[in-house]
Amino acid sequence: MDATPVWFMRQAGRYMAEYRAVRKKHTLLEICRQPELATEVTLQPVRALGVDAAILFADILLPLEPMGAPFEFAAGEGPVIHQPVREAADIERLRLFDPEEGLPHVLQAIRLLRKELDGKTPLIGFAGAPFTLASYLVEGGKSSHYALTKRLMYREPELWHALMHKLSEVVRRYLRAQIAAGAQAVQLFDSWIGALGQSDYVEFIKPHVRHILSDVEKAGVPVIHFGTGTSNLLELQRDAGGTVIGVDWRTPLADAIARLGDGVAVQGNLDPLVLDAPRPLLSRRVDEVLAAASNRLGHVFNLGHGILPETSPDAAKFVVDYVHERSRR
Amino acid sequence: MDATPVWFMRQAGRYMAEYRAVRKKHTLLEICRQPELATEVTLQPVRALGVDAAILFADILLPLEPMGAPFEFAAGEGPVIHQPVREAADIERLRLFDPEEGLPHVLQAIRLLRKELDGKTPLIGFAGAPFTLASYLVEGGKSSHYALTKRLMYREPELWHALMHKLSEVVRRYLRAQIAAGAQAVQLFDSWIGALGQSDYVEFIKPHVRHILSDVEKAGVPVIHFGTGTSNLLELQRDAGGTVIGVDWRTPLADAIARLGDGVAVQGNLDPLVLDAPRPLLSRRVDEVLAAASNRLGHVFNLGHGILPETSPDAAKFVVDYVHERSRR
Repeated sequence: MDATPVWFMRQAGRYMAEYRAVRKKHTLLEICRQPELATEVTLQPVRALGVDAAILFADILLPLEPMGAPFEFAAGEGPVIHQPVREAADIERLRLFDPEEGLPHVLQAIRLLRKELDGKTPLIGFAGAPFTLASYLVEGGKSSHYALTKRLMYREPELWHALMHKLSEVVRRYLRAQIAAGAQAVQLFDSWIGALGQSDYVEFIKPHVRHILSDVEKAGVPVIHFGTGTSNLLELQRDAGGTVIGVDWRTPLADAIARLGDGVAVQGNLDPLVLDAPRPLLSRRVDEVLAAASNRLGHVFNLGHGILPETSPDAAKFVVDYVHERSRR
Repeated sequence: MDATPVWFMRQAGRYMAEYRAVRKKHTLLEICRQPELATEVTLQPVRALGVDAAILFADILLPLEPMGAPFEFAAGEGPVIHQPVREAADIERLRLFDPEEGLPHVLQAIRLLRKELDGKTPLIGFAGAPFTLASYLVEGGKSSHYALTKRLMYREPELWHALMHKLSEVVRRYLRAQIAAGAQAVQLFDSWIGALGQSDYVEFIKPHVRHILSDVEKAGVPVIHFGTGTSNLLELQRDAGGTVIGVDWRTPLADAIARLGDGVAVQGNLDPLVLDAPRPLLSRRVDEVLAAASNRLGHVFNLGHGILPETSPDAAKFVVDYVHERSRR
């Protein structure tokens, strides 16, 4: 590759008419559970935008069901966990599982995708990180303050670590299985970790993320470690693992690069809403990101978080082409 | 004062039985609009906790109604703006107003409070900052992504600046009026500003915050400039104004102090959820905050954001006493 590679979090999604057409006939979970459908929507942005990576269409919550914590997506409300996990008995009930048995459709989608992509575009697998998964399990869905999650963490540290231990082992196996099935890189989404300060991260999170990433890194594929609101956690996240650190738009990319040092690559970090800006402002902000990483080997261009539903696919395509053109060496 | 002063954002609120008793009989807006009630709930935490400052009980949205944008608090949903502000005509309709005419009850509450406090405890007034107010006006309520707000900012910068110009003039007058009525310090709450990157702050926000604070600082009382998720904005916020910079729990206080330099004091920054932790962990985290500011004149102990409804008043009282005891010089 002679230009900066670019892909977008949530590049397969409601902002694309092709995706909405599939969603008219199938729920999100149906798409995740039918490898042919997951393959189709994964390929849509690769065809339409010319991005440099496909990312498996799936949801970070998928492992919860085979763990014994079923959920659904309530209209307009996001995920709802049927039986939130708040006590010792709830945590004991959670099961470790073999991904080939618990999530065979995900691994089948990866195999199908590798055939379809035919070596032309690499495929990224992913999983949610333990804190982010725990926040859904404990709160029962989305949250503003993570009050129940933090209370469990502070008041019942042994239960907390037991929950995190199970989640991190599930995620470790799941990412390993995705790589074994053909994923050529994986991303760990610790989307909501930015709710925590440094002391909490060190004490309650880092050992569990390390458990996952120290093993997954041995598989020899790029491992992207991503979160939002992580300005104060970047060094700790780097130490927890990953060969690429994903940065949201709040942290200036040049600062992130300076702080992270030479041992890791960086991914990011355009504000997803800037895709909706007029082209002159959009170009200027893309230039700022590229300039921040210009003296850096190992920058993957991406947004700071997922594409939003109202975004124009034309803007996404514009950015792909613009990044390629401006970064060509 | 021979110890670090301490008060809490949202120290008058649902976590206190005395407050819930008043709320049984009156809505939040009724309390704000009746100076005797606002005075009563403002005094509750001063009596119960022994905090070193009273903060006027009010809501950051109060100025919207006299501007011509009425709202209500829908049960469980937070504020709902009846006619969101999204187009030129909406912005033109917004009025500047004289606080003595538009919000006389707030100023009357300040006068009453000064009498009741009788010089024993200083009174802090406050207002929402223009971005935070604009986000409610444009979105029509709370928001996850501030998508409509950012789109207005990016796509219609002239309209955006017109809206911010009106909001900042309203806030400037409102803070000046609070000080004239007797407020002995004021806090500007830019609660949601952390959604923006640095370039956006410089281009779309800073001139308007500067318009407010460069004038309000001339009144000669402490001016606290606060936001959450502001790790990357602290220096820009300092340059926009304020004699005290409020920091949330995500930014280590020692980092904030090092970056902000000697010209300003700092306020913060315990995670509000740590109030719910067992005492040993709570004490340890309070010690961390105090240690970070130990070589610093000008630290006001506070939380990183408001007290949550389920918090125990005993924990809040414990922190007040503990901060006083540990920081006594």
